[in-house]
Amino acid sequence: MDPTTRSQLIDLRRELHRYPEPAWCEFWTTSRIVDEFERIGVDDYHVGRAVLSSPDRMAVPDEAARSEWLERARENDARYDVLEATTGGHTGAIAVLERGAGPTVALRVDIDALWIEESVDGAHAPAELDFRSQTGETMHACGHDAHATIGIGVLEAVAQSSFQGTFKVFFQPAEEQVGGGKAMAESGHLDDVEYLFALHVGLDHPTGTVVAGIDEFLAVNHFDADFVGESAHAGAHPEAGRNAVQAMTTAVQNLYGIARHDGGATRVNVGPVGGGSSSNIVPATAFVEGEVRGETTELMEYMRERANVILENAADMHDCDVDVETVGQAPSAESDDELIDLVSAVAHEHSAVTDLVERAPLGGSEDATYLMRAVQERGGLATYVVVGTDHPGGHHTDTFDVDEETIPIAVEVLTDAVLAVGDR
Amino acid sequence: MDPTTRSQLIDLRRELHRYPEPAWCEFWTTSRIVDEFERIGVDDYHVGRAVLSSPDRMAVPDEAARSEWLERARENDARYDVLEATTGGHTGAIAVLERGAGPTVALRVDIDALWIEESVDGAHAPAELDFRSQTGETMHACGHDAHATIGIGVLEAVAQSSFQGTFKVFFQPAEEQVGGGKAMAESGHLDDVEYLFALHVGLDHPTGTVVAGIDEFLAVNHFDADFVGESAHAGAHPEAGRNAVQAMTTAVQNLYGIARHDGGATRVNVGPVGGGSSSNIVPATAFVEGEVRGETTELMEYMRERANVILENAADMHDCDVDVETVGQAPSAESDDELIDLVSAVAHEHSAVTDLVERAPLGGSEDATYLMRAVQERGGLATYVVVGTDHPGGHHTDTFDVDEETIPIAVEVLTDAVLAVGDR
Amino acid sequence: MDPTTRSQLIDLRRELHRYPEPAWCEFWTTSRIVDEFERIGVDDYHVGRAVLSSPDRMAVPDEAARSEWLERARENDARYDVLEATTGGHTGAIAVLERGAGPTVALRVDIDALWIEESVDGAHAPAELDFRSQTGETMHACGHDAHATIGIGVLEAVAQSSFQGTFKVFFQPAEEQVGGGKAMAESGHLDDVEYLFALHVGLDHPTGTVVAGIDEFLAVNHFDADFVGESAHAGAHPEAGRNAVQAMTTAVQNLYGIARHDGGATRVNVGPVGGGSSSNIVPATAFVEGEVRGETTELMEYMRERANVILENAADMHDCDVDVETVGQAPSAESDDELIDLVSAVAHEHSAVTDLVERAPLGGSEDATYLMRAVQERGGLATYVVVGTDHPGGHHTDTFDVDEETIPIAVEVLTDAVLAVGDR
Amino acid sequence: MDPTTRSQLIDLRRELHRYPEPAWCEFWTTSRIVDEFERIGVDDYHVGRAVLSSPDRMAVPDEAARSEWLERARENDARYDVLEATTGGHTGAIAVLERGAGPTVALRVDIDALWIEESVDGAHAPAELDFRSQTGETMHACGHDAHATIGIGVLEAVAQSSFQGTFKVFFQPAEEQVGGGKAMAESGHLDDVEYLFALHVGLDHPTGTVVAGIDEFLAVNHFDADFVGESAHAGAHPEAGRNAVQAMTTAVQNLYGIARHDGGATRVNVGPVGGGSSSNIVPATAFVEGEVRGETTELMEYMRERANVILENAADMHDCDVDVETVGQAPSAESDDELIDLVSAVAHEHSAVTDLVERAPLGGSEDATYLMRAVQERGGLATYVVVGTDHPGGHHTDTFDVDEETIPIAVEVLTDAVLAVGDR
Repeated sequence: MDPTTRSQLIDLRRELHRYPEPAWCEFWTTSRIVDEFERIGVDDYHVGRAVLSSPDRMAVPDEAARSEWLERARENDARYDVLEATTGGHTGAIAVLERGAGPTVALRVDIDALWIEESVDGAHAPAELDFRSQTGETMHACGHDAHATIGIGVLEAVAQSSFQGTFKVFFQPAEEQVGGGKAMAESGHLDDVEYLFALHVGLDHPTGTVVAGIDEFLAVNHFDADFVGESAHAGAHPEAGRNAVQAMTTAVQNLYGIARHDGGATRVNVGPVGGGSSSNIVPATAFVEGEVRGETTELMEYMRERANVILENAADMHDCDVDVETVGQAPSAESDDELIDLVSAVAHEHSAVTDLVERAPLGGSEDATYLMRAVQERGGLATYVVVGTDHPGGHHTDTFDVDEETIPIAVEVLTDAVLAVGDR
Repeated sequence: MDPTTRSQLIDLRRELHRYPEPAWCEFWTTSRIVDEFERIGVDDYHVGRAVLSSPDRMAVPDEAARSEWLERARENDARYDVLEATTGGHTGAIAVLERGAGPTVALRVDIDALWIEESVDGAHAPAELDFRSQTGETMHACGHDAHATIGIGVLEAVAQSSFQGTFKVFFQPAEEQVGGGKAMAESGHLDDVEYLFALHVGLDHPTGTVVAGIDEFLAVNHFDADFVGESAHAGAHPEAGRNAVQAMTTAVQNLYGIARHDGGATRVNVGPVGGGSSSNIVPATAFVEGEVRGETTELMEYMRERANVILENAADMHDCDVDVETVGQAPSAESDDELIDLVSAVAHEHSAVTDLVERAPLGGSEDATYLMRAVQERGGLATYVVVGTDHPGGHHTDTFDVDEETIPIAVEVLTDAVLAVGDR
Repeated sequence: MDPTTRSQLIDLRRELHRYPEPAWCEFWTTSRIVDEFERIGVDDYHVGRAVLSSPDRMAVPDEAARSEWLERARENDARYDVLEATTGGHTGAIAVLERGAGPTVALRVDIDALWIEESVDGAHAPAELDFRSQTGETMHACGHDAHATIGIGVLEAVAQSSFQGTFKVFFQPAEEQVGGGKAMAESGHLDDVEYLFALHVGLDHPTGTVVAGIDEFLAVNHFDADFVGESAHAGAHPEAGRNAVQAMTTAVQNLYGIARHDGGATRVNVGPVGGGSSSNIVPATAFVEGEVRGETTELMEYMRERANVILENAADMHDCDVDVETVGQAPSAESDDELIDLVSAVAHEHSAVTDLVERAPLGGSEDATYLMRAVQERGGLATYVVVGTDHPGGHHTDTFDVDEETIPIAVEVLTDAVLAVGDR
Repeated sequence: MDPTTRSQLIDLRRELHRYPEPAWCEFWTTSRIVDEFERIGVDDYHVGRAVLSSPDRMAVPDEAARSEWLERARENDARYDVLEATTGGHTGAIAVLERGAGPTVALRVDIDALWIEESVDGAHAPAELDFRSQTGETMHACGHDAHATIGIGVLEAVAQSSFQGTFKVFFQPAEEQVGGGKAMAESGHLDDVEYLFALHVGLDHPTGTVVAGIDEFLAVNHFDADFVGESAHAGAHPEAGRNAVQAMTTAVQNLYGIARHDGGATRVNVGPVGGGSSSNIVPATAFVEGEVRGETTELMEYMRERANVILENAADMHDCDVDVETVGQAPSAESDDELIDLVSAVAHEHSAVTDLVERAPLGGSEDATYLMRAVQERGGLATYVVVGTDHPGGHHTDTFDVDEETIPIAVEVLTDAVLAVGDR
């Protein structure tokens, strides 16, 4: 990569790092990405409401939270057209290159940040080099700043190449809550995509490693359950209450006791949980935020159905009502052999790639799986590629950082992969 | 009391003690009581099916158990007419004296034994004097042998007196399970009763004490809950089961957690409980035998309703079915002041009564309360009298025994009370 | 009562109502009370640290909360000497009248407010008449503003009377958390008190009613239990966590299941409870705020011991640690017949007292019991008097208000009672 | 196989089928096997106490049960020498052929039956052909009658061959409870074994199929936990009890909630469970029989440690004692490639073997794993071979039966495998 491009990309990553925005509030980030679309001169692009199936969004924060981040974006000089297109929590964008006859290829990257306060430790490069989060309360602690940058890098490189066909880059919001994947998968923009690459940096793979395909995504369902009973004076009339905390604790005890499944790994966890108001009041309210996972989507569904039955009956047992809402979800998925082979081949040619892994398990969850499955169900191919990066702190910790050397590697490998599809 | 009568009564008590029969299996005992009716020459009597509202019986053992005890009764030379009248677990009898115009007065005693193996200790009088239980597995460990004897004693004494009016003695089965009281109360034989005395010996009151009226009966409900789910191989297909033991343990945890009540004392307890078949099989069945109590009938009903909701939802939570059946029940009741005064007055006159207590709490449950309430609801009066007895072992222990000196005291005090009603 | 005094007292009550301060933060309130001491010209008084056994204080808020309220008090022109005497959350005051030989009599009132946002409804007198809480977040929703005012009223009336002996008025902090009673009872100021009156207005008794003695205080223990385990990624390494929420829910289920007690009424309740951080993290922390009560102190202790065992073992069961701290406590107590008779006699003479109740149960908890028992244990007499008041909203609701007519009635009845002790 | 041998083997299988004996009570079965050793003329054999490490036996029934089966064996003309050698529940036998220099090869079969009452349905061959279980309550419902027969068949065939080396056949008791494997593995007789074959028929593989090596044994631990508290009258003194059923149900709820493990499949199950005596008595006793499993021995140990902590603290929480005892255990194991290849090769040559499977998972538990690991730990090789059989009813059901055609196939394939080892 030429030094200028490289330097531009690193500057962009640091700029994005400075303004980390949480799920469905990536107003400024979307605006900044659209700036790049215009700089590059893409053939077409779509923003906000136009890139989402609105009812399929999950984990959308409330109006007050969205307004606050919208206001911040405005103060940070976000584009007026983007702010208008993204109101109501409709963030994200898609760039399109139309380069004649040929396959339709797509790259998906995610753009949201986490609610973590970034480290001020001098050993933490963003603190040392002065591109630490300016928001105080959020942080790009999972590399999505790098993902967005790589998306731009590949977009520009393909734009400048002799690629024949159609190339789209999906900049997806709300991945951390597994809240945005479905809405983008159902938007229609994926309908003609024949080849999909998704990307993650790091995940404990060091700089120089490329994993050509990820396999074991755990399907996941995040739910919120709110119990409502009735309060009463705990000393004077204990019998008059309908105890929401007893309902909640009964539910939690039984959620952890859902039977293991012969079909493969399952998971269940809760937290935060809470309830009650004062020790002398029979608790009228309680809540559980929880998640169930499965090695396959079917296993996750098994867990979800069992969880629902438990939550409902724990409420009924204590004459309470419960409202259970799915606030995030992602299926399982598999990477396709053909694309793994293709990525392996191009990565193998790259001098900076010192270690090539064909397949590796994720052991976690990701809503890129919605996009992968949407493509695969229409007969297309998909793979989820990891480009290793040395990261001093773990993912989701306040000292996480990406080795910026990863950015040019990822841009080049993925560009080569896109071009290789065109040559297939 | 003349020595002959006294001696006859003590012999009868020992004979009854030798053949203790459990609830709804008092075939021989009923027969022996009917013998006494005929010896005394009562004006009328009713046996078995004729003294019970059959559908109101609770805690009736199964056919096999009843047949076994019926066979034993036959071997012990029970009367053929009584065995015929009592088939299907319809035990008990009522004697009637019709002595012209006057009030209708009744005495209720109970006749069933407990599943306790009687002590062989030489210090235990029945063992020493050779009238220990011949059944091996059951025992009169709560004094119902004395109760039946006292009932006969009072019947004979009233028969020989100048009493004017109608006098009935109810020999009630199945008190230990609170299973017989309702069936006798609903039989019709109580409909014309204006004054009812019920009786218990002992209850930690020594010989010489009389309690003229008992007050705090805990209303009680005994239930059996049977859970049915589905078995599965616990290693190969844990998810295929519907776990009845998880349902049962969830129920038990929550039964003990039913909120205390401002209106007064409540109780809840379970046992026996059980479930499952083999540690490598997901348990398909489980059960809880339990009881709830309340200082008032309303408090017991509060507990029962909560228990039912818990049992149903614990089953549903684990996709199981549950069948909850009431197997015994008794309401609360109060003794009436007028009869307490009457009993106090006659007991006060009795030289053997050294300590007279007007009212005392029971702290336990009794289904004489069904009969008391039935009389009271029609405007009659009732009292539950305790005649103290020195008992070496506690009630319901294998060394329980009554001081036989109690029998003549009880016969005389109650006879005097019956006659005093006639004189009112 | 002369109209001027009456008007002054009502003004004082409204002034106190405007600045409700929570437990151990009654800095301005204490200052305002001391102003009154000086206006009246008491013989002696003690403030803050001098009226408390500091280590016996319970439920003291943290430094940050105390500082905030201290600062507010300063802004509201609290006395510098009082602020100095009350730093570190040592609020409250005692006034002393020394009037020669005679009995030592005391009155105890409480002064703290609740964390309730006061109603703005026009039908709510403080809103209508413009003396609503100025703090926004706290409120005198249990009448302690009236209590403090009545304490001042009685103090002034006794000062102006011919009372012979010593009279003390205890203005106690932190009653709502049952956090201040013990510290005041152990301060030494009660050691010579022979007669103690404690006071509450309302409690569902209307204006015109006086209850001469309250009897059934439930002894209470408030506890905080903090569970600490270890977090882990719920998807990737569920087995690596030590689940504090499982510990907490197991504890809650079993706390509600503590066996009822034959010795009398018991209570148990929890709330708030909480735990966990994110649904994909095994919860490392959880907490229970709870309370146990008993009809007697012994019954409360029974509950507390059982609760502690449950909390400890629920933690151990999940390899967690738990820290259980008592944050409030009060024993049971009984009012003495002699003082009940004395209050009844003086109340009977009062024309505004239209309904006189000798004894009534509380059914709740109060830490005046610490002071009552301290006096009684040294051979003195105590009674807890309720002066009825029409209150539109219930105690502890945002529309609670006292009928100000109650203030002169209470001042006069209690003053007469104090004087009657002198005349005994 | 010649028709005479075949017919003898089928007769032997039917004879064994008629007298199914449960774990550690295989007295007659051992005797019948020793008869065969003598008929064949083995070089050496060991019986009962001599083939077991006595303290390593698990799930040994009590003296009364053992005596009953010993008596039945005597009535069925079991050999006196065998009865003497097997007293105290020391069943099983080992035959030895010593044929000069060469490898030491072993075959392990199991011989115990299940507590299932055999079907009388005419469609069930043992009922139709009159070799149904004569015991009424036990049944060879898992094919161990065929296993023992095949062991004899291979023993005789090898004895008659030109095999060079040492050949041992282990007839192991108590497999169904995973109770006998460890005791046999630790007996010393396995110390010189270099090649071990273990055998099972069926397991849903039809006649004609051979699985050369089984892989995924779940390691298992069976435990019995006995809780002891203290009884009390549930109505009169509920607080006086120490409730063993509350302890047990708390344990069960938490056992099912043991966290899943990232390292692989785990299992937990309970049953039977039970406790309590009467609904009016606070339960003084309760028990849990349970099992934990893991895909590896380490995973099983993880589950076992968690289970122990839960059981201990559930007991402590309710002031109860608990005694936890391991009553059965088996590790995980893997079959060795070299022996799988060897079995595949010989099976491939056999005309009756129509379907050859190299490896298959078990998904259950087996204590042959103790013997396999003992051999492997000393550098030897082991494989667990399945010879398919059409079985009309499932394993462990009352209509299970083996297709007797399987017997000659198994004898020939395993004999060939033993001989092939000699030729290696």
